[in-house]
Amino acid sequence: MGAIPPNNVPCLSTLRGTAIFASLTAEEDNELLSRCHTRNLCAGESLVDFEDLSKDVFVVQSGEIRAVLRFTVGKEAILGTFRRGDLLGELSAIDGLSRSASLMAVTDAVVTVIPYAVFHDVLEAHRDVCLGLMQLLSRRIRAMNERISELSFLDTKHRLYNALLRLSRLRGDGGRERIISPPMVHAELAEHIGSSRETVSREMSRLIREQVIERTSRAIILKNPVELSRRISRALEG
Amino acid sequence: MGAIPPNNVPCLSTLRGTAIFASLTAEEDNELLSRCHTRNLCAGESLVDFEDLSKDVFVVQSGEIRAVLRFTVGKEAILGTFRRGDLLGELSAIDGLSRSASLMAVTDAVVTVIPYAVFHDVLEAHRDVCLGLMQLLSRRIRAMNERISELSFLDTKHRLYNALLRLSRLRGDGGRERIISPPMVHAELAEHIGSSRETVSREMSRLIREQVIERTSRAIILKNPVELSRRISRALEG
Repeated sequence: MGAIPPNNVPCLSTLRGTAIFASLTAEEDNELLSRCHTRNLCAGESLVDFEDLSKDVFVVQSGEIRAVLRFTVGKEAILGTFRRGDLLGELSAIDGLSRSASLMAVTDAVVTVIPYAVFHDVLEAHRDVCLGLMQLLSRRIRAMNERISELSFLDTKHRLYNALLRLSRLRGDGGRERIISPPMVHAELAEHIGSSRETVSREMSRLIREQVIERTSRAIILKNPVELSRRISRALEG
Repeated sequence: MGAIPPNNVPCLSTLRGTAIFASLTAEEDNELLSRCHTRNLCAGESLVDFEDLSKDVFVVQSGEIRAVLRFTVGKEAILGTFRRGDLLGELSAIDGLSRSASLMAVTDAVVTVIPYAVFHDVLEAHRDVCLGLMQLLSRRIRAMNERISELSFLDTKHRLYNALLRLSRLRGDGGRERIISPPMVHAELAEHIGSSRETVSREMSRLIREQVIERTSRAIILKNPVELSRRISRALEG
C-alpha cells in the first residue's frame, strides 16, 4: 500500500489532454471542469465494483487504474490498465446498465469524476465529443477482438508470447529489444492470459534459458521479440 | 449453397426497424433509404473481408450474416450472427480503419448498404442516432466482456456448457427446456468456444448420455439447462 495522498489535490486545469475532449475551447473546458470533482485513491482501493449501479465517468489524472473482470479471489482477467488522460467508466453512462467490470487503483491515483448528467450535457452540446467517444468505443472493440482471437486460437504458451509483446514497449535505444518495466509478476501475467501462475513461471523460465527474454529486478526484457512473433505466426498457421 | 436470389429485391420500405434509426420520422427514413442500395448475397458469399478498406455500413433485411475472425482454414472464431434489422460494419465507418472481422452470409441474404458519407450525414443531423449508436457499441463491448470471461476462466467443457446456454432460446412451451434450432454441427460449436471438433463431440456425447441434452435432426434440446448453469457456477467458484 502506498502513502495516503493528500485529501485535496487541486483539480487539474484541463481535460483537453483526453482525446474525446480535445476539441473543447479553453472556456468550455473550464466550464466542464467546474462541474466535476476530484477523487484520490490509495493503491489497492476500488473506484468501481462490478455490477455497481453508479454511472459517473472518470478521467485518470495520475497513477494507474486497472479494469478487471473478477469472479472469486484468484479468478481475475485484466481488461486493461489506464493512465493519465484516459477515459474510464463510460459504458454505464451510455447505456445506464450496471458496471461491466471493476476499476481498481494499482498505484496511488487521482481521478476527475465527471457526473453522469454533466457528461450527457457535454455529449448534447458537442458533436465532436460524440464522435470522439464513438471512436474510443470502436478502439475498445478492436482491442477486445484481438483478445478474443488470442484466447480462441492460441494455447497457453503462445498466449503468453502474445501478452509479452502486447504489454511491452520498444526499449527506445534504437534496437529491436522491447521492455516491460516495472516488471510484472507471474501471477499478473497469468491473469492477462487466463492461465495459472505455475504455468507462466515454467514458460518464463524456458524463455530465459532460450535467451529470448531476460529478467532483471527492474524489467522484463524481450531480447528477441521477432522470434516470439514468429512462433505465434507458426501457431496460428499450423 | 442456396439458390441465387433474384437480382433486384426491392429495397425495404423502412430502416426504422433498426434500433439506432428508430427515432427517424417517416420522411427522414425515406430520404435515408433513397441514398442507400440493396445487395443480395448467396449462402457462403462474403460481404466484407478482414482488413478490407471499405467503410460502408449494413442493415440485414433478410437471412443471416455472420461476423468471423479468421486466420486460416479451420481457425475461425464466430463473433456473432446477425439477422433482420441488425446493424453491421459500423466500426470502420466510425474510425476509418480497416475491417476488424469478416462478414459472411450463412444463408441467402439481403442487406441494405448505407454508404459511409450517408451514414455520417445521418449522425451529423440526428443526435438520437448518435446516442443509439453508442448504446449499440456499448452492448457489443459488454457481450465481448462476457466472451473474454468465458475464454479466460472456463475450461473447454464449461465453455461448451456456456455456449449452449448462450446460443439457445427458451423452447416456448412454458417449460424450462431450451433449444438450438436449426442444430449446430460440432465444428461450428468448436468455433464458438475456441476448441476442436473432436473435443466438442466427446463432450456432447457425454451430455447426451447424462440426459442433460438431446439431439434430434432438427434441434439440440437442452433438457436440463439449470444443471448446465450449476456446473458453470461451480467451475467459476472452484
